[in-house]
Amino acid sequence: MEFLVRFETHLPDSVDDAERKRLRDAERARAMELRQDGLLKRLWRVPGRRAVVGLWEAPDATALHDALASLPQFPWMDVTVEALATHPQEA
Amino acid sequence: MEFLVRFETHLPDSVDDAERKRLRDAERARAMELRQDGLLKRLWRVPGRRAVVGLWEAPDATALHDALASLPQFPWMDVTVEALATHPQEA
Amino acid sequence: MEFLVRFETHLPDSVDDAERKRLRDAERARAMELRQDGLLKRLWRVPGRRAVVGLWEAPDATALHDALASLPQFPWMDVTVEALATHPQEA
Amino acid sequence: MEFLVRFETHLPDSVDDAERKRLRDAERARAMELRQDGLLKRLWRVPGRRAVVGLWEAPDATALHDALASLPQFPWMDVTVEALATHPQEA
Amino acid sequence: MEFLVRFETHLPDSVDDAERKRLRDAERARAMELRQDGLLKRLWRVPGRRAVVGLWEAPDATALHDALASLPQFPWMDVTVEALATHPQEA
Amino acid sequence: MEFLVRFETHLPDSVDDAERKRLRDAERARAMELRQDGLLKRLWRVPGRRAVVGLWEAPDATALHDALASLPQFPWMDVTVEALATHPQEA
Amino acid sequence: MEFLVRFETHLPDSVDDAERKRLRDAERARAMELRQDGLLKRLWRVPGRRAVVGLWEAPDATALHDALASLPQFPWMDVTVEALATHPQEA
Amino acid sequence: MEFLVRFETHLPDSVDDAERKRLRDAERARAMELRQDGLLKRLWRVPGRRAVVGLWEAPDATALHDALASLPQFPWMDVTVEALATHPQEA
Amino acid sequence: MEFLVRFETHLPDSVDDAERKRLRDAERARAMELRQDGLLKRLWRVPGRRAVVGLWEAPDATALHDALASLPQFPWMDVTVEALATHPQEA
Amino acid sequence: MEFLVRFETHLPDSVDDAERKRLRDAERARAMELRQDGLLKRLWRVPGRRAVVGLWEAPDATALHDALASLPQFPWMDVTVEALATHPQEA
Repeated sequence: MEFLVRFETHLPDSVDDAERKRLRDAERARAMELRQDGLLKRLWRVPGRRAVVGLWEAPDATALHDALASLPQFPWMDVTVEALATHPQEA
Repeated sequence: MEFLVRFETHLPDSVDDAERKRLRDAERARAMELRQDGLLKRLWRVPGRRAVVGLWEAPDATALHDALASLPQFPWMDVTVEALATHPQEA
Repeated sequence: MEFLVRFETHLPDSVDDAERKRLRDAERARAMELRQDGLLKRLWRVPGRRAVVGLWEAPDATALHDALASLPQFPWMDVTVEALATHPQEA
Repeated sequence: MEFLVRFETHLPDSVDDAERKRLRDAERARAMELRQDGLLKRLWRVPGRRAVVGLWEAPDATALHDALASLPQFPWMDVTVEALATHPQEA
Repeated sequence: MEFLVRFETHLPDSVDDAERKRLRDAERARAMELRQDGLLKRLWRVPGRRAVVGLWEAPDATALHDALASLPQFPWMDVTVEALATHPQEA
Repeated sequence: MEFLVRFETHLPDSVDDAERKRLRDAERARAMELRQDGLLKRLWRVPGRRAVVGLWEAPDATALHDALASLPQFPWMDVTVEALATHPQEA
Repeated sequence: MEFLVRFETHLPDSVDDAERKRLRDAERARAMELRQDGLLKRLWRVPGRRAVVGLWEAPDATALHDALASLPQFPWMDVTVEALATHPQEA
Repeated sequence: MEFLVRFETHLPDSVDDAERKRLRDAERARAMELRQDGLLKRLWRVPGRRAVVGLWEAPDATALHDALASLPQFPWMDVTVEALATHPQEA
Repeated sequence: MEFLVRFETHLPDSVDDAERKRLRDAERARAMELRQDGLLKRLWRVPGRRAVVGLWEAPDATALHDALASLPQFPWMDVTVEALATHPQEA
Repeated sequence: MEFLVRFETHLPDSVDDAERKRLRDAERARAMELRQDGLLKRLWRVPGRRAVVGLWEAPDATALHDALASLPQFPWMDVTVEALATHPQEA
């Protein structure tokens, strides 16, 4: 089942530059794993914002939540999830 | 996977009383079938409105859509769907 | 009478990890008591968020408020309550 | 238990003046009965609008819904209900 | 003239427990005076929130503002005011 | 007491041109009376819209409602009212 | 350049069943052409609604508009378009 | 003074094709005049919608309203106007 | 040209009482100058809030912005501006 | 392709006056470069706010994002982007 997931990340000012870099690298590494596992299928940037739209595939919303919560920046992400149904033209 | 589904039904004025009754009876009959099939688990009325909140269970959003679209009043229903994840306290 | 209750919890950054763990354990323990007392009937996680949707049963809104306010994380919870009426199909 | 109920009534253009008068008289008569039964406690007009705010008392949301649905203009009313808890200063 | 007033109070974290208690006691005392003066007629708690809905009576919006601003927690209250007209059924 | 009143008028398509003209003339005549009575103090047009913002003065919201309801186009007006308090700089 | 396009189609009641079928067939045929031309890349159904989310690719917003306007149901579609930027992980 | 003006036009179904064409031609002709008079400076189409965003210049909001109201489709346009100030980088 | 300007001022907690008083006095003094210059015509308080609604007159939005930005509390004001056109009844 | 870009900049209180001035100068210098490169075409100030509306031209949303992200104040800007299509009157 596919989901459209939108999130925007705001690290607090108290996170210093070294930690920011470490978090971003870890985020990218974890995202790569989720791509290899087939959970994360596409990712787009919302122009002008620290926000992304992603196309995810997971057996259900619980598995999707676990995948999202495994991202290192998850504690600072504001996430909204939209469940998608298959369109008859693609069935 | 469970879904919280909210819908409000507004039959157009052109539907006469006999057709209204027929539609409501058919709606109830179809809802009973969906309960027996385990898709529709609970239904509440939003007080003061022609709206209901329901707890549904379906393998995915496509199966949920098909169940909703099988309701006789579906063409006149405004529906919103929220995907639910299992809470760790209930896992 | 049943209520649909939605809440999202944001502990401030000043709460350290030990206190966070203590609060979560206390929250879970209190939730278990509220389940045993029949006030808390179901709990779902909103995927991607630190938010839950719950089905509660209480004699009235005052008793519901007292139950919610007894949760250890209540001071940091943003709560919305929706009163539910019995659906004729379930009466 | 008390509820704050807000509704706005829009009779369709197809309702002629005689029927409008009949509906308003019936509405007033039914409201009087609901006051005598203790369900309807106060009613205010929202200035400039065909809308009212009311203070209602009912055992639960189901009884409140039945009272609202007994109003002759209910099919043309857009209603929102807010459950109220007792304030400690009034307990 | 009556007003429906809704407010939610959020004391900042920098206010310590003793000051919180002092503020709440002062708030209650001032509210009692406003009741005795006939300005504050009813108060309800919004279930699950640190918010109240109140029914106030004042000669005009200026007198209402002065009454609200006399509450000790006013600097931390987010307030919205709705002017109410008399309903013909109560005139 | 002063009120800021915003309204937008949409006559239905079924009102023919002669009736439209009659309604607009009657509206203007009634507005002039309300100005002479001191209820209507200023009127502005919202650019690009069939909407106006007005400054009204009335003893209370009930008197304001009666003034607004006396306008011939009132049945087709969508009205919102905001109660204004005197600013200390103008007291 | 990719765009996320959301639309919901509401044919008016005056469109009879034969015309509805003709429109849907034509819509599907045109969508197939747009897929073959590489403009329409994916399509999902929003569960419970007569709405779809689509991933489109076009040189710019003008070409996207022309593609959308070429759909036979375009006059009855409510469309929102979101421009997407390439995410660095996919560059 | 410049204004950003957004409008969306919805001709009612009762307007037949000949009248639609006549209105569109008249609209375009009037827009050309407004361009020549320097009131209408730029016009963009919102992709996927029957909506446009325009950059207008007028001495004040009254002159802008008169220009907008002179468009033949004005009775069916939903218009919002935003006043713009000169940016210091362009002064 | 007239503008309806709404603003709400929230000084940060770090501003001490002496500075608050100094800012309020300076604000009032500057407002008086703007009244004398004919830019600020009326000011109302929104009951229950640290917000005001004002009627301003300025040659254009740039001059209005400069007037607003000259207020000592401007850095902490959240401002919205609505351009007003002359109503034909007042022309 | 043109874009309408709206942003509002809020530097945190921790940024001192010297740094503020340095950031504003660097912002202006970078904006000038973007104008010379043809990316930034017009800029307006939203009256009363620390916000600007800009007309930008870029090959696609990715290039637009890179241009916006090159602004020195980008980390503190809240940005929304609207893709614009060419209007037939200007084609």
